[in-house]
Amino acid sequence: MSRGQFITFEGTEGVGKSTQVKNAAATLKTLGIDYTVTREPGGTPMAESIRELLLAPRDEPVNDITELLLMFAARAQHLYTRILPQLEAGRWVLCDRFTDATFAYQGGGRGVPAERIAQLEDLVQGSFRPDHVILLDAPVETGMTRARHRGDLDRFERETVAFFERIRQTYLDRASDDPRRYHIVDAGRPLETVSHDVTSLIQSLVSQP
Amino acid sequence: MSRGQFITFEGTEGVGKSTQVKNAAATLKTLGIDYTVTREPGGTPMAESIRELLLAPRDEPVNDITELLLMFAARAQHLYTRILPQLEAGRWVLCDRFTDATFAYQGGGRGVPAERIAQLEDLVQGSFRPDHVILLDAPVETGMTRARHRGDLDRFERETVAFFERIRQTYLDRASDDPRRYHIVDAGRPLETVSHDVTSLIQSLVSQP
Repeated sequence: MSRGQFITFEGTEGVGKSTQVKNAAATLKTLGIDYTVTREPGGTPMAESIRELLLAPRDEPVNDITELLLMFAARAQHLYTRILPQLEAGRWVLCDRFTDATFAYQGGGRGVPAERIAQLEDLVQGSFRPDHVILLDAPVETGMTRARHRGDLDRFERETVAFFERIRQTYLDRASDDPRRYHIVDAGRPLETVSHDVTSLIQSLVSQP
Repeated sequence: MSRGQFITFEGTEGVGKSTQVKNAAATLKTLGIDYTVTREPGGTPMAESIRELLLAPRDEPVNDITELLLMFAARAQHLYTRILPQLEAGRWVLCDRFTDATFAYQGGGRGVPAERIAQLEDLVQGSFRPDHVILLDAPVETGMTRARHRGDLDRFERETVAFFERIRQTYLDRASDDPRRYHIVDAGRPLETVSHDVTSLIQSLVSQP
């Protein structure tokens, strides 16, 4: 039995990650590929508790390093108790956000130096990285309008446009540094066009040797 | 106004840390020194929420790196939002456990390599270290008997004697490496003798130039 592929979905608020994760899952199902769907921060009961701590709006200002360490604490729990065992069982894992989001949000967004994030990435993951990253890219205003329509905003969704512009740019920079692993999908187009592209992309990843 | 001193209290379960933190506070009060008392993990509302996550007994096995990162996440929040501002305001800070506990519990106890812990210590604290560490040392059985009498045991208190022996030894090794900053108090003796020694120690720290 061969190891499953680890596919992550990234992008700023409201670009349609959840929709495309579902679309990718449906595509894998059609192709007869065994898979599981998960998300970060979260993915296990303990990691979901850490997620709640991270997202809850609160009076106490959250230190940037606290936020960074909580993200990686949730990730370590998720990776070792769920993602790796699933991949080793031959299942594909579709994950809504992973470490690229930490580089984008805590790095690009909050200004934590990328070297610090990379140090924690190595500490938690060793050499483990996603096999493929699907970056849903759209102008920040498009996504924010969609996110606002969803109702109550969490601690991240309350940030400014400039914050999300820095996040978008960090994602694009990382994608252009490694075009073999990163796949940029223009998510500013109509949903059916975006979904069509994601479906084709997943089909091509499955048919790769 | 001069910066306050940061004094930490360390030791295995049931050695009487809380009692001696109170005793030290009473001594500072008598000497007219402005101080605050706190503890780790915890010390701010957010860090206390992380403490609850860490201590709650749970079915899901907690990954060692998750535990380590949660400890340092709570520490970053405590250090930057409470400890440093208090010290800079001229107040002494008495803290029940700090980073020595991480080296002892996650390092000595769980077997996480000390270099990994030191890497996180540098990332979170820079060069900041306690001015003085008061290590309450007693045979493991003495402390465990006392901890058991307190009732419900948390996730750490449920560990084995061998786990606590490794913790005690790590504390003693660290203390012997830096005798100027570490003060070992034999906590296996009667309470009044231990308290007398801690009072004298605090008095000597206050009268130091």
